Amino acid sequence: MVLKLSTLFLRTLREDPVDAEVASHKLLVRAGYIRRAAPGIYTWLPLGLRVLGKVEAIIREEMNAIGAQEVHFPALLPREPYETTGRWTEYGEGLFRLQDRKGADYLLAPTHEEMFTLLVKDLYSSYKDLPAYLYQIQNKYRDEARPRAGLLRGREFIMKDSYSFNIDDEGLEEAYQAHRAAYLKIFARLGLEILPVFATAGAMGGSKSEEFLHPTPVGEDTFVRSAGGYAANVEAVTTIVPEAIDYTDAPAFEVKDTPDTPTIETLVECANEVAPRTGNPWTAADTLKNVVLAAKMPTGERRLVAIGLPGDRNVDLKRVEANISSHLETGGEVELEAATEDDLKKHPTLIKGYIGPALGTDDAVLGLEGSSKILYLVDPRVVAGTSWVTGANAPGQHVFGLVAERDFTTDGTIECVEVHAGDPAPDGSGPLETARGIEMGHIFQLGRKYAEALDLKVLDQNGKLKIVTMGSYGVGVTRAVAALAESNHDENGLVWPRNVAPADVHLVVTGKQVELFEAAQKIADELDAAGVEVIYDDRPKVSAGVKFSDAELIGVPTIVVIGRGLADGVVEVKDRATGTRTDIAVDEVVAELIALAKA
Amino acid sequence: MVLKLSTLFLRTLREDPVDAEVASHKLLVRAGYIRRAAPGIYTWLPLGLRVLGKVEAIIREEMNAIGAQEVHFPALLPREPYETTGRWTEYGEGLFRLQDRKGADYLLAPTHEEMFTLLVKDLYSSYKDLPAYLYQIQNKYRDEARPRAGLLRGREFIMKDSYSFNIDDEGLEEAYQAHRAAYLKIFARLGLEILPVFATAGAMGGSKSEEFLHPTPVGEDTFVRSAGGYAANVEAVTTIVPEAIDYTDAPAFEVKDTPDTPTIETLVECANEVAPRTGNPWTAADTLKNVVLAAKMPTGERRLVAIGLPGDRNVDLKRVEANISSHLETGGEVELEAATEDDLKKHPTLIKGYIGPALGTDDAVLGLEGSSKILYLVDPRVVAGTSWVTGANAPGQHVFGLVAERDFTTDGTIECVEVHAGDPAPDGSGPLETARGIEMGHIFQLGRKYAEALDLKVLDQNGKLKIVTMGSYGVGVTRAVAALAESNHDENGLVWPRNVAPADVHLVVTGKQVELFEAAQKIADELDAAGVEVIYDDRPKVSAGVKFSDAELIGVPTIVVIGRGLADGVVEVKDRATGTRTDIAVDEVVAELIALAKA
Repeated sequence: MVLKLSTLFLRTLREDPVDAEVASHKLLVRAGYIRRAAPGIYTWLPLGLRVLGKVEAIIREEMNAIGAQEVHFPALLPREPYETTGRWTEYGEGLFRLQDRKGADYLLAPTHEEMFTLLVKDLYSSYKDLPAYLYQIQNKYRDEARPRAGLLRGREFIMKDSYSFNIDDEGLEEAYQAHRAAYLKIFARLGLEILPVFATAGAMGGSKSEEFLHPTPVGEDTFVRSAGGYAANVEAVTTIVPEAIDYTDAPAFEVKDTPDTPTIETLVECANEVAPRTGNPWTAADTLKNVVLAAKMPTGERRLVAIGLPGDRNVDLKRVEANISSHLETGGEVELEAATEDDLKKHPTLIKGYIGPALGTDDAVLGLEGSSKILYLVDPRVVAGTSWVTGANAPGQHVFGLVAERDFTTDGTIECVEVHAGDPAPDGSGPLETARGIEMGHIFQLGRKYAEALDLKVLDQNGKLKIVTMGSYGVGVTRAVAALAESNHDENGLVWPRNVAPADVHLVVTGKQVELFEAAQKIADELDAAGVEVIYDDRPKVSAGVKFSDAELIGVPTIVVIGRGLADGVVEVKDRATGTRTDIAVDEVVAELIALAKA
Repeated sequence: MVLKLSTLFLRTLREDPVDAEVASHKLLVRAGYIRRAAPGIYTWLPLGLRVLGKVEAIIREEMNAIGAQEVHFPALLPREPYETTGRWTEYGEGLFRLQDRKGADYLLAPTHEEMFTLLVKDLYSSYKDLPAYLYQIQNKYRDEARPRAGLLRGREFIMKDSYSFNIDDEGLEEAYQAHRAAYLKIFARLGLEILPVFATAGAMGGSKSEEFLHPTPVGEDTFVRSAGGYAANVEAVTTIVPEAIDYTDAPAFEVKDTPDTPTIETLVECANEVAPRTGNPWTAADTLKNVVLAAKMPTGERRLVAIGLPGDRNVDLKRVEANISSHLETGGEVELEAATEDDLKKHPTLIKGYIGPALGTDDAVLGLEGSSKILYLVDPRVVAGTSWVTGANAPGQHVFGLVAERDFTTDGTIECVEVHAGDPAPDGSGPLETARGIEMGHIFQLGRKYAEALDLKVLDQNGKLKIVTMGSYGVGVTRAVAALAESNHDENGLVWPRNVAPADVHLVVTGKQVELFEAAQKIADELDAAGVEVIYDDRPKVSAGVKFSDAELIGVPTIVVIGRGLADGVVEVKDRATGTRTDIAVDEVVAELIALAKA
């Protein structure tokens, strides 16, 4: 079907939409691919729907190729299964919840682990039925606090989500690797640069997890990579833990007056005055900074957590959030924020600016200690034997030479500091550099969390019931369209890779003579008959200039201009990406364009 | 891709699901096409998704063929546009409503008139842009009071909805006829018997409207048809209005004692005693029955309405509901029920069992009269000059010879009586018969209702702003799958028409010899290479009996049995619909099956 611009439901815009921040959003709206219906909620126009369909087809082919089978779940789901796994609560405000006319609770599904688990439980009962890989391409809903960047972070969006079901861990690893390989193929076919990075599992639960990031400055995710090939989401970066230090001969700690030193900067200055070290002045790295955070638990409870870290580092809240679940003995995501004055007032032993580990010299313990009511977690660099300048839990006082393990205890370590460029990669592959990316896919080894909660068991080889182990795998489909637009555009508009372009060829007639339109129509029909997709700008009263800018804006790979040259038997073929123009004989152009399209 | 039953995500059931009432629901679940996720909400399994995809493809082709362009709207929509047209309220409990984290109101769209109107307003501005036909195939949501019959009446379901935009009424008529013709083609290609019937517009608003009904006893809609070709939804049937009668010489009415006659039956008996007519005894048709109803208005108000009708008829609440809007000066659907004792107590002049038009003989008006607080509507048969026996608004009294127009006034006529088989078709094409059907499609001439409410205007030929006129057109896509199953099954299972079957051929191996499986695999591969879709039952340890019943249950058009005959060089080809079995030489069977599939 030739798309004629005289009738195509399209209106290109010369101005960027006011709410658009990123190029993909601006251009997809301006070129008539999408329109905003509500914050984070978009309508697909004919051109956009074509691109979306091609992205979906590629994903579908690669999923089918690994033996995954397509199903389709509802978006509107009952509360009960999500209640059973705890996610009804854990998702917090990110979940769209509603009630039906009878007052029964429903949700708009953000992801479908529960339903797939129950479906497999309904259909299957034996290890012989496994492995099963199932997927769907379907609408997902998340009530994002800040929907942004058009399709990049929407509230209604399309995901391909798959789930694997295996009898044992080896099977899960195989399923995981099959999906990993399929994802790499999918993104390669889409022409989207992708870096798989280690990730944390977040609210999904489970163990092993990787994100497929598309590196771009407009990405929301910060990740790190080393020249040696290490790559991880910052949440997942691990610190090389220094060796413990023998503290047998370490001098005892001393409390000193350090008036007016509530910050690391003032403390370091003061320390070099009250306890100068020759040739080796105190720096921020010698201090132990203790930051008190408040965790908003899924239950609604507000719980304080103290984080101890070297004073030359700052806390990265997202990293703490990603790694704190196991310490709180709770599933799901925990939101953290700095403790308020009110929070601190409830713990009068904490003196703001002078907080430190409990010194334990008094019968009344002041400050932070392991297993106290305030969870006290430290950066992995705080190993046994390290010696610190830190708060003495008294106004205007710090303690010098406080030695980890000998002088204070903690509730464990946590990855909590901002990762800096230059930090070593955990696998020894060199210093890290930081970059930004868009999360295009995410794969998880869920393990038995969902199967256990929903009682998905099958009979094993010995006739015994065994809990199934699961993986879950997602690709952001609408987000892929945005990422493709983001990475394929220039100042004039979109520049689609041929695999996903809404058409192969964009025919432009310049001039008014009927012969031009007849020639163009003939070329269009011949291409269409050969299966080459054509946009034909047949608008009679539109200037050549407007037609050219529309063609550049829409971004089909090959633009063909039928104009003055036709009298000499040639048309102009322009490559949208390179700008190269070639005159081609009109009786050869169809064969040429077919060759280009099928290349 | 050959679907092998050893790995296909499928489990057939021998028992009907407990909640299933109709054959399509039972068989689609038993044969592994769908599963229930919540009341009226279904999951599509691989076989079901294939059928759904084929139905969608046929619809898409026919919509594209009339120049309709596909777009895709969100399902989650903001309240505002629906507020503007009044449908946020009018939909009542049938609408799923929810709030986002900021407390903004959203809905899950039951249909998209508002959004399409706004989109066209956003993109188009001139009559030159019109006509525009747009459509989508998309999830719809309705919070049905009684979801039933599986996919036949769901709460999340797929619809193809299109909308036409024209500058004038002639254009609208053309768009309407184009969609009407496309719908007839779609249902013909699906192999679904369809009868277009006149319908009322309901909550949609607008004027001309037809439903596409699939006649079946399990249908929820009652319709009527005449041998002469008239067909209408009962809500839309019109009564042939008798001519008015000259009442100049009619005798004056008389009030008579009719003790203990609260029903038509007792009244008729009594009338023949107290006022016998020779040779022409009173019958129920001589009485005017006045039924008081309570209308639950969209605003929440409860308003009484009285309906006057010949005593040999009963009120059809659905017909009254469908036709009462214009009398209530309100848009949208009104729910009606019989007035309660409490309702009647508020109007002490209404004496239950003896209610009649106001006789106007008192200074205090007793009973029903036009433009009183109780709206009084009568059946169209109650024309001027007709004379009635009816309640006298006093206990135990009726009035005889009360003449319409001379003795009482009303607020108008309404189609309100139950249509009976034998009633004349309004177009004079003979007596009506009643039947039941499933509404598969519905087309509406909306006119300017939505464009007016949402201010969709374009410049006309004279440069003046003109309101656009619209049509809206729907096909129930998931419902079509159910209707196909309903009309294509036998006692052994589904019997799909080839156009929508999940595959063309179902290969069954009976026996254990490796040669049989090799031969089957070869046939499967050759068919697959030729584009014939194959289900291959390669399960090694399943009995021939189970394989046969699964094949019958799944209902693919051609079943091929590779078994004992292979030694003699033949396989058995069975037609699922007719049961005909033919032995075909194994080296000819592929060509034969390709011919069948492409026929």
